Amino acid sequence: MHNVTEESITDTFLGYFGQDTDPRVRELMNSLARHLHAFARETRLTHEEWRRGLELLRETGRITTPQRDEFVLLSDVLGLSSLVDMMHSPEVGTSSSVLGPFHVSNPPAYPLGADLRREHPGEVVLVRGRVVDTEGQGIAGATLDIWQTAPNGLYSSQDPEQDEFSFHAEFTTDADGGYRFTTVKPVPYSVPTDGPVGTILNATGRHPWRPSHLHYITEAAGFHPLVTEVFPEDDPYLDQDTVFGVRDDLVIHYRAMEPGTFPDDGFSLSGKVEGTWLQVEFDVVLVRDTGTRR
Amino acid sequence: MHNVTEESITDTFLGYFGQDTDPRVRELMNSLARHLHAFARETRLTHEEWRRGLELLRETGRITTPQRDEFVLLSDVLGLSSLVDMMHSPEVGTSSSVLGPFHVSNPPAYPLGADLRREHPGEVVLVRGRVVDTEGQGIAGATLDIWQTAPNGLYSSQDPEQDEFSFHAEFTTDADGGYRFTTVKPVPYSVPTDGPVGTILNATGRHPWRPSHLHYITEAAGFHPLVTEVFPEDDPYLDQDTVFGVRDDLVIHYRAMEPGTFPDDGFSLSGKVEGTWLQVEFDVVLVRDTGTRR
Repeated sequence: MHNVTEESITDTFLGYFGQDTDPRVRELMNSLARHLHAFARETRLTHEEWRRGLELLRETGRITTPQRDEFVLLSDVLGLSSLVDMMHSPEVGTSSSVLGPFHVSNPPAYPLGADLRREHPGEVVLVRGRVVDTEGQGIAGATLDIWQTAPNGLYSSQDPEQDEFSFHAEFTTDADGGYRFTTVKPVPYSVPTDGPVGTILNATGRHPWRPSHLHYITEAAGFHPLVTEVFPEDDPYLDQDTVFGVRDDLVIHYRAMEPGTFPDDGFSLSGKVEGTWLQVEFDVVLVRDTGTRR
Repeated sequence: MHNVTEESITDTFLGYFGQDTDPRVRELMNSLARHLHAFARETRLTHEEWRRGLELLRETGRITTPQRDEFVLLSDVLGLSSLVDMMHSPEVGTSSSVLGPFHVSNPPAYPLGADLRREHPGEVVLVRGRVVDTEGQGIAGATLDIWQTAPNGLYSSQDPEQDEFSFHAEFTTDADGGYRFTTVKPVPYSVPTDGPVGTILNATGRHPWRPSHLHYITEAAGFHPLVTEVFPEDDPYLDQDTVFGVRDDLVIHYRAMEPGTFPDDGFSLSGKVEGTWLQVEFDVVLVRDTGTRR
């Protein structure tokens, strides 16, 4: 029987697997093929649409660089990244959220209290909090990899006016698990729309906006690392994040502070902030790594 | 309600579509997202597996060139290409089959009876047949774009020893719809395994072989174009084509012919074939394009 048919092709595919195939690989490829075939069958996908889909993938490849990962962005706007995050987010502890395409490896290490704002305009924001375990005990020596957009809405790798590590920093918590730094409030951010993801958003009448956010990767020995981000509670895009990253516990309040109340010490801007400023408090709750797979 | 959850994300995704979204785009994206999300949910796809999948796609992009389309090959080995072919293959007329990654645009036009074999070794194969409509009437002026591997199993773009158009040719049918040429018998062919498709085949214990085949793209004014390929009936890989391209009506017989029986005229090799040779007859049945979508 040479004939493969529309009905038999999925079983034929599964029958090709070698006997020694790793069970997890088999499970993943089995599910992937069944869903891919079901998608094509139920939509009666045409050759022209198939070609268009492949061209979108080729274009995604062409526009991807080490500084810009359009495949991650595609996964983000399709909701896949957030779904994976949510399925593996700890039930206790801080929710995880999307990494996004603009993380930079090995950001510069700064002392606690350092300023990321540099010469950029905008009200000073003081961010502080603790990295704690699920019992509320501070975790000393945890690292926080923090990144965000500049006030113009661009990440450093998108913006020739910024150096590579602008608004990228790593901090290490103090003995009590505390961390602190100053920056400016991030602004709502449009994912890049000059590639195939923009084509898809446009074709489905979707806006490209994300609510403004600060990215956090928090790591500590003995704990599961956490990739997350925090959003201001007054952001207009909070309920329509184009990459589905918002979780209730990641929404924070930017508290307006009176002139003259900025801390006298502990910050590189201490003594230099005369007007109003904003304060954010955000604790990161990490879950101990007990060696079992979540 | 800011929270997107594992359960609500698919509906949230669908709710983002603009009201003016083209109904077919909506249908495709709806089905794609539902199946992509269901794949992730039912496998409990991990971050590490998600990253690995994205890296496979990035690598597919990196290895793809205008001469080698790894995305098409990925679609082929996953059975998607053949499924699309089968869903839109005419119920009457010759079956379609996969295009494959090695088609070359604008092959040289040859007169009927020309030889593709050039200096390559191997028994001469005479291929002849007619392009006809579903009533059996010959279609004059139809074009056949024919391509195949050289006897070493490589397509021209894979083989520095061959020029770009080696074993690529276009023929135009005569007044009766007839076509004819000489070549050598193609050999079983391994899809390229030096890229991510090779990684996937290896991980699932699959061989990379296709039964040997001659590719045909047949076009004629007023008819649906047909992309197909034909396979020798004695090929060892006929029942395990790694890209699922075999259909019963595409399996042909290479008839062994006695020395001295090669036609005296009508072929550029007429008068030059002294030993045994092989003959193949294959008619292509095209379906009239009535302007309705199949």
